[in-house]
Amino acid sequence: MKRNAIILAAGKGTRMKSKLYKVLHPVLGKPMVEHVVDNLDRGNVEEKIVVVGHGADEVKSVLEKSVKFTLQSEQLGTGHAVMMAEDLLKNQDGTTVVICGDTPLITTETIDKLINFHEQNESKATILSANMDDPTGYGRIIRDNQEVMKIVEHKDATEKERQVSEINTGTYCFDNKLLFKYLNNISNENKQGEYYLTDVIEIFKKNRHKVLAYLIDDASETIGVNDRVSLARAEELLKKRINNQLMVNGVSIIDPNNTYISCDTEIETDTIIYPGTTILGKNKIGSDCIIGPNTHLENVEIGNSTTIKQSVITDSIVGNHTNVGPFAHFRKDAKIGNNGRIGNFVEIKNTTFGNNSSAAHLAYMGDASIGEHVNMGCGAITVNYDGTEKHKTVIGDHVFIGCNANLIAPIEIDDHSVIAAGSTLNQNVPKYTLAIARSRQINKEGYVKNSKNM
Amino acid sequence: MKRNAIILAAGKGTRMKSKLYKVLHPVLGKPMVEHVVDNLDRGNVEEKIVVVGHGADEVKSVLEKSVKFTLQSEQLGTGHAVMMAEDLLKNQDGTTVVICGDTPLITTETIDKLINFHEQNESKATILSANMDDPTGYGRIIRDNQEVMKIVEHKDATEKERQVSEINTGTYCFDNKLLFKYLNNISNENKQGEYYLTDVIEIFKKNRHKVLAYLIDDASETIGVNDRVSLARAEELLKKRINNQLMVNGVSIIDPNNTYISCDTEIETDTIIYPGTTILGKNKIGSDCIIGPNTHLENVEIGNSTTIKQSVITDSIVGNHTNVGPFAHFRKDAKIGNNGRIGNFVEIKNTTFGNNSSAAHLAYMGDASIGEHVNMGCGAITVNYDGTEKHKTVIGDHVFIGCNANLIAPIEIDDHSVIAAGSTLNQNVPKYTLAIARSRQINKEGYVKNSKNM
Amino acid sequence: MKRNAIILAAGKGTRMKSKLYKVLHPVLGKPMVEHVVDNLDRGNVEEKIVVVGHGADEVKSVLEKSVKFTLQSEQLGTGHAVMMAEDLLKNQDGTTVVICGDTPLITTETIDKLINFHEQNESKATILSANMDDPTGYGRIIRDNQEVMKIVEHKDATEKERQVSEINTGTYCFDNKLLFKYLNNISNENKQGEYYLTDVIEIFKKNRHKVLAYLIDDASETIGVNDRVSLARAEELLKKRINNQLMVNGVSIIDPNNTYISCDTEIETDTIIYPGTTILGKNKIGSDCIIGPNTHLENVEIGNSTTIKQSVITDSIVGNHTNVGPFAHFRKDAKIGNNGRIGNFVEIKNTTFGNNSSAAHLAYMGDASIGEHVNMGCGAITVNYDGTEKHKTVIGDHVFIGCNANLIAPIEIDDHSVIAAGSTLNQNVPKYTLAIARSRQINKEGYVKNSKNM
Repeated sequence: MKRNAIILAAGKGTRMKSKLYKVLHPVLGKPMVEHVVDNLDRGNVEEKIVVVGHGADEVKSVLEKSVKFTLQSEQLGTGHAVMMAEDLLKNQDGTTVVICGDTPLITTETIDKLINFHEQNESKATILSANMDDPTGYGRIIRDNQEVMKIVEHKDATEKERQVSEINTGTYCFDNKLLFKYLNNISNENKQGEYYLTDVIEIFKKNRHKVLAYLIDDASETIGVNDRVSLARAEELLKKRINNQLMVNGVSIIDPNNTYISCDTEIETDTIIYPGTTILGKNKIGSDCIIGPNTHLENVEIGNSTTIKQSVITDSIVGNHTNVGPFAHFRKDAKIGNNGRIGNFVEIKNTTFGNNSSAAHLAYMGDASIGEHVNMGCGAITVNYDGTEKHKTVIGDHVFIGCNANLIAPIEIDDHSVIAAGSTLNQNVPKYTLAIARSRQINKEGYVKNSKNM
Repeated sequence: MKRNAIILAAGKGTRMKSKLYKVLHPVLGKPMVEHVVDNLDRGNVEEKIVVVGHGADEVKSVLEKSVKFTLQSEQLGTGHAVMMAEDLLKNQDGTTVVICGDTPLITTETIDKLINFHEQNESKATILSANMDDPTGYGRIIRDNQEVMKIVEHKDATEKERQVSEINTGTYCFDNKLLFKYLNNISNENKQGEYYLTDVIEIFKKNRHKVLAYLIDDASETIGVNDRVSLARAEELLKKRINNQLMVNGVSIIDPNNTYISCDTEIETDTIIYPGTTILGKNKIGSDCIIGPNTHLENVEIGNSTTIKQSVITDSIVGNHTNVGPFAHFRKDAKIGNNGRIGNFVEIKNTTFGNNSSAAHLAYMGDASIGEHVNMGCGAITVNYDGTEKHKTVIGDHVFIGCNANLIAPIEIDDHSVIAAGSTLNQNVPKYTLAIARSRQINKEGYVKNSKNM
Repeated sequence: MKRNAIILAAGKGTRMKSKLYKVLHPVLGKPMVEHVVDNLDRGNVEEKIVVVGHGADEVKSVLEKSVKFTLQSEQLGTGHAVMMAEDLLKNQDGTTVVICGDTPLITTETIDKLINFHEQNESKATILSANMDDPTGYGRIIRDNQEVMKIVEHKDATEKERQVSEINTGTYCFDNKLLFKYLNNISNENKQGEYYLTDVIEIFKKNRHKVLAYLIDDASETIGVNDRVSLARAEELLKKRINNQLMVNGVSIIDPNNTYISCDTEIETDTIIYPGTTILGKNKIGSDCIIGPNTHLENVEIGNSTTIKQSVITDSIVGNHTNVGPFAHFRKDAKIGNNGRIGNFVEIKNTTFGNNSSAAHLAYMGDASIGEHVNMGCGAITVNYDGTEKHKTVIGDHVFIGCNANLIAPIEIDDHSVIAAGSTLNQNVPKYTLAIARSRQINKEGYVKNSKNM
């Protein structure tokens, strides 16, 4: 049985009050519609068709994945949106899920359960339903025993129907062939002049097909993001879900309400995450690490037993047993080895920093290759930019760079050499060499004596 | 109809356990009583009289606004406090709101609705009431149809009266003339020996005046701050209210529970605020900015499309399309232009920093004027202090300041000049000049050879 | 009456998925079992016996306090665990509390109330019980009037018994002699083959002893930590309890949900703690301080009226009226005086920093003694490490250290001396001396003229 999914991602999202199209707003750093596609990817759906409209190009550029696109150039309702997939799917046997691009929290498990329920019960149209404490405003699922009789919109519902707490979440599973057959029968003769996907349910019923509803376990999955208040709510729910799973897997999260970790972050057991930490993008973090408080990681790989406190690391790699921070910053392809120590007010960019090396304070290393057992003194700087171009600094093993030294790149400092504190170097330094570039100290005794203010 | 407000701000607030007088404790950075006055300012009240007592001078100095003060030198109850406004208001026609200085969350809208309700219904005394889930301890509103029969204190209430969930919030609207007429009739013959404002309601009723109660929509507005636990609760409620409004207006707040924004902050659409951010004082932030995480702003203006990460900015201005942080600090009249880049561990104070200029790492600029297209090297410093006085540094356009350079102020570096890395300058530098002040490098080859520990 | 406590701390805690033994997992920075012991220490218990098993040595090394240890080498159930204390306690008169090492939130007050209730009512076995909204899974307390008839496990309970909301928390108080007498009668003839402590209750009843239950006021105290989700929950509850007490005592905590303060932190009145702040270990903080936002303190003493913003301080002392931060870092025995100013990107380690001294930006002081009225310039560094050893820097009073100066230790800079900016010093500087070590400035005019990119 072929399974398809149609993802409705054409809306503008006026209530977001945004230049960014609704489905592109991120939740934990990833656009909503990408969550939907990723959740489908992890499940049993083969073909995914995204209906784009507003911001079509932007949506396409985000979803450079295994999806097809179809354009809904005018937004004439959900039914009309699904029709846009007709050329790609009609006359095919199989099952088709229809899901909105603004429901990032519906899990792979829920989608797969919905499909299984649909197929095992030989349903032709299955609605993903949810029980709501306050169903006001939602379409109600009116059942007769197991089968769905109809979906009735809140405004059209009788008093008794309004007491039904089971609502339509807007996600469906259809027999693919019948879906496109009957979609052509729905009309836009209503106040809004739109084609509603819910109307197709009535046609399934009229044609005496089995229509079921699959009740979701956790109604909060079905939250649809229509404004920034619900966006923040979705962020909160997803955050708690991710953090809960990490804790179950053996990661300590001191305050799961105040720790923001993306879906695409792997963390091994016995790592502890302190509050105020954001971990976005794609990350791999080993075991026995301490991360935070107030740390930001984005697209990083961290080894085991490494500590990163009050620091910012993006697009970089850090090895095992390395201590970072507080107030360190690695970016753009910093590659830090094992047993390192990078302390406060140190920046490392596009630099390889070898094992057992140290840069404890106030240093900058950019566009450099730094060996093992190197001590980068306090205030030491790789002068990588001459106002026009960036140049490379190469430092060997067992090198000692004195405090406030400037290494004007391009420059090579060979193994076992020592750079005197306060030196500015513009020539290479051979092995076992002491390089010095500074003036002698002169003490002008008594010079200050009469100065009253000292 | 003239509208007045009497703000009761004379209490000490013993349960705060503080040297600071109760109404001066801040909520989101602004003293409680100032919230009350500001909320009245935005509405339809003309004259505002603040009854001061404990900490009278401190309260006056905070409220340098369009309010009058009257002193209650002894604290003899709420009725007595209102009497202190008699000389300023008696015998005037009009409506007078009485509100406590420790209720910072009652909105302008609520006050205006209370006044409108009072006036449109030709009430003579109107109580702002609220429905409480647990009304224990509060005075209950006992109604007969629409009119209020009496306020009964919890301790005096019958079992049936205690089941009433509508309570007196302590905010009132009165016919001004009648208020002061009847206030003279209340007595302090009770256990505490105090004059209670609630007693005046009884006198209105005895004299067959209409007494109504206006039920507030959101009871949480009426929270009165008597200790630091309720202070934190007020902070939380106000935080959520402000953040909710910002989100509705098109600002993304990743975690509204962990973002602290003052009432007096304007933020344009499509700006994103990351968690752990505090924005206090008076601020204007443009559109499409990224602020945070873990950023503190206070009294700043930020343009559009500017990014400020893990940084602290106070009393400063930042232009458009400028990238700041992580770990940057601007203070005391830093004025940063457009398209700038100020990176990690950079401080800017009392300095103009021109468009398209950059200070990417570990630099300090104080008391300086810096032109456009300037590159301030890593570790470069304006030496603005000689131990006695601060001096000015002037840097032109298209200047390149080398790493770890010291510019000893007063000094001028003219356009298109270049300062060599590691130089300490104490003379001006003309246009198109290379200034250098450093020693030649000497390589002592083999010097390190026998040193075992290198 | 002698009071004993037996603390059950032998379990591995498989659901924690951790190499660390369960009772050693920290809550607000302190191992769970240490909370239990500390809570007992503050009360009326004389002798404390910790039953260790998994991770016995680690648990012992944490509890270097007034406790005795007994080893349960095989984990054969709670009854068996208590039996391990037999040699230490049997045949003694007195009262014995049995408490789990994974219940860090049960307060001293609760334990003392339990003991008092037990003794005053001449009970022989008293169960600490709690009312649960959802008692599913817990053992129910079945009462007949005041006395306990039995504890019935959920799986063995009748429908009626399951409706009882009063549950067994797993903490007990026993007549010591009888406890050990009857423990020998319990059997392990059950599915798990374990000796259950609850079985001893039945034996007390059979022997017609009085068995009571003492109902705890706040059921949340009894939370047992079995996985990292409940660990985070315990952390949250303890955090709120500590913060609430601090607020009641006169400390302002802007957001008690986002402020993490250890049990062993004392803070005086009118100090304000901003969000994102963690204060762990043992600390004393004076009055009128401002701490945070986003600050980390651990094992520090802070005087009065001191401000610490966006900074990290560990194992250090700071005096009165000193301003620290943003982005400062003190560690390992920094001792900072009064009226100081330590600004951004400054690190101080193992250093005495005198009164009225200032280090406003980008400086590092390590292994130094610094006098009073010293100005440590921007970028100034104590060069304390020569690649092999650390050396000491001594700076007198009224010394002015110029920007980017390097003081190569060991070195002494005597009172009233001035170090010129950009100097690297390796000799001592006598009193009233100007020390300078730098090259003259050379301006190469026109040098840059033809360079197009400047």
